[in-house]
Amino acid sequence: MGVGPEVCVAALAGWSGRPLRIFGRWSPLAAAAGPAGVRLERVAAPWAAAPPGTIPVFDPEDAGEPAEVAAIRLAAAACLDGRAAGMVTGPIHKKRLAEQGFAHRGHTDFLAALCGREEDEAVMAFVGGELRVALVTVHLPLRDVPAALSAPRVVAVTAAAAAALQRDLGIASPRVDVCGLNPHAGEDGLLGDEEQRIIGPACAALRAQGFLVRGPVSAEAAFLAARNHENDLVVAMYHDQGLAPLKAVDFGRSVNWTLGLPLLRTSVDHGTADGLVGTGRADPSSFRAALGLAASIAARREA
Amino acid sequence: MGVGPEVCVAALAGWSGRPLRIFGRWSPLAAAAGPAGVRLERVAAPWAAAPPGTIPVFDPEDAGEPAEVAAIRLAAAACLDGRAAGMVTGPIHKKRLAEQGFAHRGHTDFLAALCGREEDEAVMAFVGGELRVALVTVHLPLRDVPAALSAPRVVAVTAAAAAALQRDLGIASPRVDVCGLNPHAGEDGLLGDEEQRIIGPACAALRAQGFLVRGPVSAEAAFLAARNHENDLVVAMYHDQGLAPLKAVDFGRSVNWTLGLPLLRTSVDHGTADGLVGTGRADPSSFRAALGLAASIAARREA
Repeated sequence: MGVGPEVCVAALAGWSGRPLRIFGRWSPLAAAAGPAGVRLERVAAPWAAAPPGTIPVFDPEDAGEPAEVAAIRLAAAACLDGRAAGMVTGPIHKKRLAEQGFAHRGHTDFLAALCGREEDEAVMAFVGGELRVALVTVHLPLRDVPAALSAPRVVAVTAAAAAALQRDLGIASPRVDVCGLNPHAGEDGLLGDEEQRIIGPACAALRAQGFLVRGPVSAEAAFLAARNHENDLVVAMYHDQGLAPLKAVDFGRSVNWTLGLPLLRTSVDHGTADGLVGTGRADPSSFRAALGLAASIAARREA
Repeated sequence: MGVGPEVCVAALAGWSGRPLRIFGRWSPLAAAAGPAGVRLERVAAPWAAAPPGTIPVFDPEDAGEPAEVAAIRLAAAACLDGRAAGMVTGPIHKKRLAEQGFAHRGHTDFLAALCGREEDEAVMAFVGGELRVALVTVHLPLRDVPAALSAPRVVAVTAAAAAALQRDLGIASPRVDVCGLNPHAGEDGLLGDEEQRIIGPACAALRAQGFLVRGPVSAEAAFLAARNHENDLVVAMYHDQGLAPLKAVDFGRSVNWTLGLPLLRTSVDHGTADGLVGTGRADPSSFRAALGLAASIAARREA
């Protein structure tokens, strides 16, 4: 179910970076390995060794656990205890997991819980293509977005993302455009007041802390500036404001990068695409980009 | 104030299409004409003739009227009585006009009133670059968007836009992706119910009427499909959902095209950019594209 295993294996073809291991269901991984020319070895315990030249695969179902949830849990634990430098995740099908009793809205919430953090300490960001985007709110119905905004949240997301660009991407002084909530960033109060009540004060606080922040600016202006290399990061107030432009410009190149938690995690920017399973048409570019980003950040942190 | 006059004149450099006339303030137009090599002639009445090889300019202030509002009114009247095949507008500064007592939220609302139509009969669409987008709601605070959606409105906007693509752009059977309101188009009801209550039934009604409609689909999927030439039109539920991707992909190429009214009107897709006035850095591409689109649609309608 889902293209995760096949894009994972395809992305590993020719991998010559640091050692890896896979947590996931064996059979779809094994089915994809031959065509991709990737040598996998099924191991009986999460940290068991595999022969040189092979990538160890532990299938949580061998231990009687549901694969997707257990895989995330094992990888997060390894990051937290230092056995792994980072983790890369494929897509999950939220409704299918919800039906299995999974109580989180997605990977990111679950990871926050595994780290013992509040859900809203996790920040979803996307990098790797032309645009870099961080989201102030994520998986909320649109009608709930205005009430979910607060100046502290805007400050926390922006500061976390700017700090990550500095530390992990080597951008010394990130220039950040913070979007308004409303059309034309509220057009001086004609079209909503969240810019004046919430986002404007948050931007002022960020500037007072030394961040290079413009805003609130209209979403169009922010993304246009990004295309023109006039900013390094766009902070969007909600999911579609950030991700519709991102996908339109960067699909297949962008990587979902979780900030604000004490582990390094990247992920693909696409869904499970169940209809493409086994067709050979699932594009591994995003998984490959996620793997490459995690590896390069890990190397930078170790340097 | 504003770059409208200079981008208008710059867009007219080398114009060899149908006869034109300009309604607007003389002095900034005249100032831009010399450098652009465009020959303008100030005329004393809206429909007065000008010498061959010149473009007549009527300044409403010569008749004691505020230029921007009167210019729109004159052009709309000419379209409605058949003296003009269409009209092209530059940017207006909504807050400045509001301070002068202008009671409309923008050009489009004002044009609806001039046509004797309800405001919501006008549909804002953008074409000309890679993406074609129509908006179900436009200049509303984000918090007011969910309550402003209705199935009849989604049907009306989609049908008007699809019909315009057929009639005026020669796309025989437009393929339309209608966005959801919520992230991931509501993710099967997990993230909001407007898809199930409003947008889904609207899409079903459109399909029953013979339109090639998919939806509700997530905004990211709709714009990705557009980039992949898998649709001809994206119908967005609100301003930033449609325009952030549009500007990120098509800035300077896209044209604001008003549908649903009994006149042909196109406009630039940018604002007044007051800070660029007279710097020579205002880009006339969007005005040129707006002019070209209006002229080509007019020619097609006359054919």
